Amino acid sequence: MTSTTRPAEASRIAAPDEGITLDELRLAARNHGMPLEALRYDLTPPGLHYLLIHYDIPYLDPARWRLGVDGHVERPLELDLDALHARERVELTVTLECAGNGRARLHPRPVSQPWLDEAVGTARWAGTPLAPLLAEAGVLDGAVDVVFTGHDHGLDRGVEQDYQRGLSLTDALDGDVLVAYEMNGAPLPPQHGAPVRLLVPGWYGMASVKWLRGISVLDHRFTGFQNETAYRIKHATDERGVPVTKINPRALVVPPGFPDFMTRRRVVAAGPVDLFGRAWSGRAPVTRVEVSTDAGRSWTEADLSPSAGRYAWRAWTHRWLADTLGDTELLVRATDELGAAQPVDQPWNTQGMANNMAQRVAVTVR
Amino acid sequence: MTSTTRPAEASRIAAPDEGITLDELRLAARNHGMPLEALRYDLTPPGLHYLLIHYDIPYLDPARWRLGVDGHVERPLELDLDALHARERVELTVTLECAGNGRARLHPRPVSQPWLDEAVGTARWAGTPLAPLLAEAGVLDGAVDVVFTGHDHGLDRGVEQDYQRGLSLTDALDGDVLVAYEMNGAPLPPQHGAPVRLLVPGWYGMASVKWLRGISVLDHRFTGFQNETAYRIKHATDERGVPVTKINPRALVVPPGFPDFMTRRRVVAAGPVDLFGRAWSGRAPVTRVEVSTDAGRSWTEADLSPSAGRYAWRAWTHRWLADTLGDTELLVRATDELGAAQPVDQPWNTQGMANNMAQRVAVTVR
Repeated sequence: MTSTTRPAEASRIAAPDEGITLDELRLAARNHGMPLEALRYDLTPPGLHYLLIHYDIPYLDPARWRLGVDGHVERPLELDLDALHARERVELTVTLECAGNGRARLHPRPVSQPWLDEAVGTARWAGTPLAPLLAEAGVLDGAVDVVFTGHDHGLDRGVEQDYQRGLSLTDALDGDVLVAYEMNGAPLPPQHGAPVRLLVPGWYGMASVKWLRGISVLDHRFTGFQNETAYRIKHATDERGVPVTKINPRALVVPPGFPDFMTRRRVVAAGPVDLFGRAWSGRAPVTRVEVSTDAGRSWTEADLSPSAGRYAWRAWTHRWLADTLGDTELLVRATDELGAAQPVDQPWNTQGMANNMAQRVAVTVR
Repeated sequence: MTSTTRPAEASRIAAPDEGITLDELRLAARNHGMPLEALRYDLTPPGLHYLLIHYDIPYLDPARWRLGVDGHVERPLELDLDALHARERVELTVTLECAGNGRARLHPRPVSQPWLDEAVGTARWAGTPLAPLLAEAGVLDGAVDVVFTGHDHGLDRGVEQDYQRGLSLTDALDGDVLVAYEMNGAPLPPQHGAPVRLLVPGWYGMASVKWLRGISVLDHRFTGFQNETAYRIKHATDERGVPVTKINPRALVVPPGFPDFMTRRRVVAAGPVDLFGRAWSGRAPVTRVEVSTDAGRSWTEADLSPSAGRYAWRAWTHRWLADTLGDTELLVRATDELGAAQPVDQPWNTQGMANNMAQRVAVTVR
């Protein structure tokens, strides 16, 4: 249910010198990122995978959980967890990233969940493909969008809603979209959508609706808050903007050496430093990762490991000969097969969506 | 190893109107709290349990892990994981809380990991008791302290260190201190200290050293950074202060109704609202939980569920008849058998340690 009694309020942009607010901190304390040293793991342990929860984690009884498939279809369906498990099972390794990753690095800062670089994670997901489920329900001629509804309920900018996201019928019928019930070989943890979530590989996380309870086929375009207002790239708050869809290329490095507690600045010993990281793109395979160890003045190509699947991040390594003592900054950036490289200076948008500015790591060589 | 070449720098206190800094946000994005709706679970799923990681999560191979027990003992020991598993096994349900919980609610704000209310979690831990291990090593006469060293390494206020904490020999010999290798029936997750951590029930989390690699008996008092500088209650930055030890009483409520995304303000429907929460104290059993639904003007006693063990949080319930429309604030506070009730206005200390100011939840009744 989306209340449409009044238009959504505009998102807020922080004043140029405004510190992080209590509202943003409250979100950051709940919605954690992946500590970057966890880039080491091919599959992110569930407690280290990033989390963005719009409202509350619902407290659901798997035995009473049901999934409705209805709307513009011949035969509405209702499935319980056993019925879902009895269907074709598919496993996929998928890197998910929050569409707001990098938001708090923008100037001026869009006020929302204040991510820096860490809103990412990779898991082995298992579930049943969506397309055959829709085929069984019998999508009628004239179907346009498919809307996915979660159990999480709240207000956002004055609009009361169950979390809902629409996909075009074409995107919904992509063979790799899953109705997922397992993460890394175990039932979904509560915070990742238990008992069942949608998984839309290659797309930013907002499409992969957690705590899924309904799938509805529409004969018109879906105009709910999360598609029409929240997840859009806008350059003025009153602009309609364009929808956020697939994940832009990004590389991250495991920060080398050891950190200072408060600043997270790294200390490394002079000499060879083996850098390790991951890179991904939801749009096309990653073809290049570049590293700068001199704050962006020069770049060197890193060694890419073999791909671990179409939707999984790819490992890379680079040996840095850290022979200049003192402070520097590491930057890393990825390029995918479509030729899109990460920007060093971020193009800005009002809601801080789909940012992929190159990571910067402050390092002292001693 | 603790470098003692120079004294630690003082901790910083934010200016009265200073917003949350980028340094604090960077910590908040890594060190997540428990979303308060997870108070519902008797045992917090690992990915929802609070996390405070001083430096980096070490990337350790359990097959190569060893624990040394040495120092002022007759027979130094070295144990691998199999040797630890072969020893007496004990399970304990323990509520852990970060000593800095509540820090970001203080005015002025001590600058460090900026917790609000959520740095808590409860798990079923399994491991082997510490006391027989020390007995086997043969603690010599004149032993004073036992120091526990983790694999995590970093800088804090200019002092380079492995994370280390000392306990008095008396506290270390408390029968309930465990060398723990399981959490909720599974091997420890990386972020909770894999493969082995210390567990000091009843104490704030800083005592339960993660990624444990060494236990050393000292014939003198331990004066490392985490005991002498960091985890102390001070009223001036140049004061030595008193050590942080056991957990003060605290109650938390599952925020009722549903939230607004950005402010987390709750909306509840007028009528009866069943409140549910938990309360704990590391000092003594919780004897009373009180609820205020009028911003602290009046208080009503909640119903306490039976205790789930000496170190586990205790559930409580309270039916609130929400019959006044509009905005209000819920407060909850616990009292333990020693008579210590949570303050409504927090006594301040420079490092924001051992705070337990009553929780406040902004609610709109409609």
